[in-house]
Amino acid sequence: MIRRAVRVAARLSQRRALAGAPCILPRLNPTSAFGSSTDSLVSRFCPEKTDLKDYALPNASWCPDMLSLYQEFLEKTKADGWIKLPSFKSNRDHIQGLKLPSGLAVTSDKSEWRIFTRCIQVDGQGYEYVIFFHPSKKKSVCLFQPGPYLEGAPGFAHGGSLAAMMDETFSKTAYLAGEGLFTLNLSIRFKNLIPVGSLAVLNVDVEKIEDQKLYMSCVAQSKDQQTVYAKSSGKQVRQPQSCHHHPQNRWKETR
Amino acid sequence: MIRRAVRVAARLSQRRALAGAPCILPRLNPTSAFGSSTDSLVSRFCPEKTDLKDYALPNASWCPDMLSLYQEFLEKTKADGWIKLPSFKSNRDHIQGLKLPSGLAVTSDKSEWRIFTRCIQVDGQGYEYVIFFHPSKKKSVCLFQPGPYLEGAPGFAHGGSLAAMMDETFSKTAYLAGEGLFTLNLSIRFKNLIPVGSLAVLNVDVEKIEDQKLYMSCVAQSKDQQTVYAKSSGKQVRQPQSCHHHPQNRWKETR
Repeated sequence: MIRRAVRVAARLSQRRALAGAPCILPRLNPTSAFGSSTDSLVSRFCPEKTDLKDYALPNASWCPDMLSLYQEFLEKTKADGWIKLPSFKSNRDHIQGLKLPSGLAVTSDKSEWRIFTRCIQVDGQGYEYVIFFHPSKKKSVCLFQPGPYLEGAPGFAHGGSLAAMMDETFSKTAYLAGEGLFTLNLSIRFKNLIPVGSLAVLNVDVEKIEDQKLYMSCVAQSKDQQTVYAKSSGKQVRQPQSCHHHPQNRWKETR
Repeated sequence: MIRRAVRVAARLSQRRALAGAPCILPRLNPTSAFGSSTDSLVSRFCPEKTDLKDYALPNASWCPDMLSLYQEFLEKTKADGWIKLPSFKSNRDHIQGLKLPSGLAVTSDKSEWRIFTRCIQVDGQGYEYVIFFHPSKKKSVCLFQPGPYLEGAPGFAHGGSLAAMMDETFSKTAYLAGEGLFTLNLSIRFKNLIPVGSLAVLNVDVEKIEDQKLYMSCVAQSKDQQTVYAKSSGKQVRQPQSCHHHPQNRWKETR
């Protein structure tokens, strides 16, 4: 059976060269094992200077575990090849010039758009998170602290909020590791509930890239690794090269 | 390999008998095929009178498709056994007396808690949804309209926002159909992106109840059924009877 799915073409915006908050930059090694594609994607994804607010920075709501692990990874950005990804309020700030699939018109009104995982604006109430990415290891670590607006069972994060955090971390990782653009599959096994206000560490790996697809895995656990919150796998589809030229095309895949 | 997961005991609150907004009530047939357990769960879940705001009511942001399908299902609540579920800002308003698992303290501060799928307060910006449930068919239909704060790719709902909506619909359905309390598994295949501001109809079925677990499926599609947005399956675990007496116990399951 053939299925049709939306195929879109994405082009990253040029770097903004406006004055603004400093951004932690990747230290790219031109002789490293990973290809120039990832170099280029990362450097465009992490603008050197921008006037956009980076939401992936510490604030007063962060718990001590989150702050200390953030500092630990920040140190690793200086020597170990890790990159701190900036996080703007909308994907539109990361990705511009995205051509729309045929038949799906998007309103151009003055709505304020927000990426789902930055939908709540008060520090600590909703999603607090920061993603670190390692290009050559094709790994990410997401530090995630759910706030009281992400509740499911009283006092604990909604399973759906963790599902969304996993999907978002998969998406950003897949994009940077191999131009993955869309989630095809997401499969989660929940183990323990995450207490609101505490830290969950999401360890994401790109397992393989095959047939234009990226296969990814995630383990979400407590900082001390004693409690596994959930495990998941995800499949993302790459942007086929032809997509740049034929954005209206749709891909085909057996269900 | 043995895994441990949080086991909690939930007790529904007694009906509130305060004056307030009218709530659409189930028309329960005492001679129907479904057990008294579901009758009792539904009647406690849908208080006759409450002063709590029901967020699952039409507002100016609802698109014409959502409004018309809502009216259609509302008619079915009068004769066909469907029930419109109320939706409060927190699960705490639905479920009280939930005992906490050992070792996981929940702060009792004055935080405002919100169920994740009601985290955004402005009409139309975030989640708009209403769930209808049919006790004897063990089915639910969720009308879901994602707002601009639920964005992933520009103009489209984030996959994670749909994942959370599916998880929430599974959870409420599993609770009412068989006292399902926690999501064990959630597996989603994404087919097409949902345009922001449009209606997605989630058709949920309880496939079977076995070994204290509920197996559920969901198809999310456009109103005209011409576009499938995603398909998913989920597994929820029931509340074991012993759990009432030993809330600190954890369940064991082979991974």
